[in-house]
Amino acid sequence: MTNNKTPFRIAIAGLGTVGAGVVKVLQDNHDVIKNRCGRDIEIISVTASNKTKDRGVDISNYEWVDNLSSMAEDNRVDAVVEMIGGSEGDAKTLVEVALKNGKHVVTANKALLAHHGFVLSQLAESYGVSIAYEASVAGGIPVIKALREGLAANEITNIYGILNGTCNYILTEMRETERNFDAVLKDAQEMGYAEADPSFDVDGVDAAHKLVLLGALAFGVQPDFESLEIEGISNLTMKDINYAEELGYRIKLIGMAQCDDGVFTQVVSPCFVSKKNAISQVEGVFNAIMVEGDFVDKVMIQGRGAGAGPTASSVVADIIDLARGERVSTFGVPTEKLKAIEWRGVETLNAKCYIHLHVKDVSGVIADITACLKDKDVSIDSFIQRGHEEDGTASVAIVTHKASLVKVNNAVRVVEELATVLNKPTLVRIEDI
Amino acid sequence: MTNNKTPFRIAIAGLGTVGAGVVKVLQDNHDVIKNRCGRDIEIISVTASNKTKDRGVDISNYEWVDNLSSMAEDNRVDAVVEMIGGSEGDAKTLVEVALKNGKHVVTANKALLAHHGFVLSQLAESYGVSIAYEASVAGGIPVIKALREGLAANEITNIYGILNGTCNYILTEMRETERNFDAVLKDAQEMGYAEADPSFDVDGVDAAHKLVLLGALAFGVQPDFESLEIEGISNLTMKDINYAEELGYRIKLIGMAQCDDGVFTQVVSPCFVSKKNAISQVEGVFNAIMVEGDFVDKVMIQGRGAGAGPTASSVVADIIDLARGERVSTFGVPTEKLKAIEWRGVETLNAKCYIHLHVKDVSGVIADITACLKDKDVSIDSFIQRGHEEDGTASVAIVTHKASLVKVNNAVRVVEELATVLNKPTLVRIEDI
Repeated sequence: MTNNKTPFRIAIAGLGTVGAGVVKVLQDNHDVIKNRCGRDIEIISVTASNKTKDRGVDISNYEWVDNLSSMAEDNRVDAVVEMIGGSEGDAKTLVEVALKNGKHVVTANKALLAHHGFVLSQLAESYGVSIAYEASVAGGIPVIKALREGLAANEITNIYGILNGTCNYILTEMRETERNFDAVLKDAQEMGYAEADPSFDVDGVDAAHKLVLLGALAFGVQPDFESLEIEGISNLTMKDINYAEELGYRIKLIGMAQCDDGVFTQVVSPCFVSKKNAISQVEGVFNAIMVEGDFVDKVMIQGRGAGAGPTASSVVADIIDLARGERVSTFGVPTEKLKAIEWRGVETLNAKCYIHLHVKDVSGVIADITACLKDKDVSIDSFIQRGHEEDGTASVAIVTHKASLVKVNNAVRVVEELATVLNKPTLVRIEDI
Repeated sequence: MTNNKTPFRIAIAGLGTVGAGVVKVLQDNHDVIKNRCGRDIEIISVTASNKTKDRGVDISNYEWVDNLSSMAEDNRVDAVVEMIGGSEGDAKTLVEVALKNGKHVVTANKALLAHHGFVLSQLAESYGVSIAYEASVAGGIPVIKALREGLAANEITNIYGILNGTCNYILTEMRETERNFDAVLKDAQEMGYAEADPSFDVDGVDAAHKLVLLGALAFGVQPDFESLEIEGISNLTMKDINYAEELGYRIKLIGMAQCDDGVFTQVVSPCFVSKKNAISQVEGVFNAIMVEGDFVDKVMIQGRGAGAGPTASSVVADIIDLARGERVSTFGVPTEKLKAIEWRGVETLNAKCYIHLHVKDVSGVIADITACLKDKDVSIDSFIQRGHEEDGTASVAIVTHKASLVKVNNAVRVVEELATVLNKPTLVRIEDI
């Protein structure tokens, strides 16, 4: 609705897949975007590590800047689009200089904001500018906007979802093709769904960066990466996948931030999710986030969590917002209102749990295991053992009744010490969602 | 981020389920909403048809206004919240007077905007104020915001979804309980999921009002209710539901607006939707909307499409946006840019179709039917007839190959004339989505 006829001027630092995608969106959809903004969006300058690389987009009309600081200090620029990545170094410096020079920042950099989001939001506020980061969580899914604006009437009680497409692809492929983690990961790497060093994804760190931002927004608290408990998917086997299926669940890497009567918990870990929950049906590289609020009940958004097009869609949406004059605090409330809270450890949760054991198939083994559980006050809901392997071992799956995770962990530690238990037991929370 | 310390002042007209819900949200979540807005939201005045009715919320602190015009002309008021309903009469007058007095309007009134949205958006624009209507489409689901802002970088190619919870509840119940339409409708009425006169919902008019708004936003066109083709669900039988299931589909009442190479189509009708499409898994009173854009690919949002809490959540989100200073054109672009387009009839679509016939089980009946289809150039993909009823009749389900709906309709009209065909054939589009 703005009648500001001057163009909104941006500078783009970083022309990798997403950066080049942003240029492409702004070029391909120039007219419709101009209509929606009520003004032009003009790329003033660009920079990247390699000037001559072919990126599939024509950047010859934009100034090439070699010095990030001069880009961030350029008086003509309204917003700096940071597409460099990484929580430290160039990306951080660029964002700081841009904010201090009164420029809005648009970024897809979840690591930067997960680690430095609070300080950067203070900086933005003190200079009267915005940090927009829709693309940093769940790619093309407009979940930041949904939380910060669309559901802003609600006290959020719980937010959880599938925040990493690589992990979801691997888990889906394991189930559908009955292959183990390593084999599927190798495929995923060949198809470009996983990095050569996959640890950032499969260990849950990428999902954790995103969850921290969602939690901050949902509850109006300072993003706090350090206190987040993270567990990845690399220990899961086909046996776990199959037991989940048999018991009516799917295994998903779930990032969850919840507020239960003033007690906050945030955790990234594999979970058993009931097949009746829509999240369990989100397969492959797709992401999905469920938000629970006191008035809206449940809202779920799903879509592509990565890729040039979807991520650039979110970056440009942020640019459009800024060009339209929209200004919302980084984490939904002024920084002075952002609470510094103590996150309670995930062990304080009560949940049903799945435990998988690989045991020697000898007399008394089940009695020993169940005695350990009983001794730690953990009650058993289901117990599955079907015959044994040729090597005289057997696979045992246990589902507990709802219990304090402290007790379940204690029980598992004792079970692990039994001479008849051959593996480090797999323990997966069953989320009653 | 606004530092405006003056309260944002609203007046609420209509205190039915949703109107009272809005008051409750603003009261219950006062503090968090104030933090998010950076200022207070203050209810100045309220009105409704009955002053003394117990609505479960305390309205004694607000001025009671008997005259709608004086509410809309009140100099203290920043925004009028119209919760009266109906496309004409008091609601329309109130909105017009409010806009002309420079007040923003927040409404859940899909009928008003479907019929008068373009003229009202011009009026709002000329007075420099906004019409906010998140609650008018899909209750608590922030889909207006997703389209207008979150996905604003995209050319939208298709938007479709389940926009009426009553119909979705009935279709779900029919399938799950194997009862016919009339029986399930009666239950739905008793449970408050359907009105005493259910025609507005089951004939597709309510979904159509919503679709018109989504189409206008998605494509930057003038909302055009008159040219929308609408078909309800009351002719569907258990046979159709079961055939759909057998063939790998679910029947959903789908509102769809699509742009195919510059050709626009909008239609509300029952559709066969593949069980592989997430929309097909959205059951009961829930709503869901899928948006397809050129860069984001597909994004789906699902949640509660009705009820006091979810709908009030969206109304208050709109109020928060306005209090924060957000101003976006009613349909995403300035009204002068809203194209007046010709919507092409649904018959111009090409689709697979499901046809259900009730026939006399006599020699040659199948030959006659298939000859009619062949004669009209409609090719058959599947043909199901299993035995016959005791009364000498049989049920036949046909799935065509993809064909022009003109041809399929022509074929069905001829089939209907056959002496061996006893019913008005049921024809349902199979949406390849």
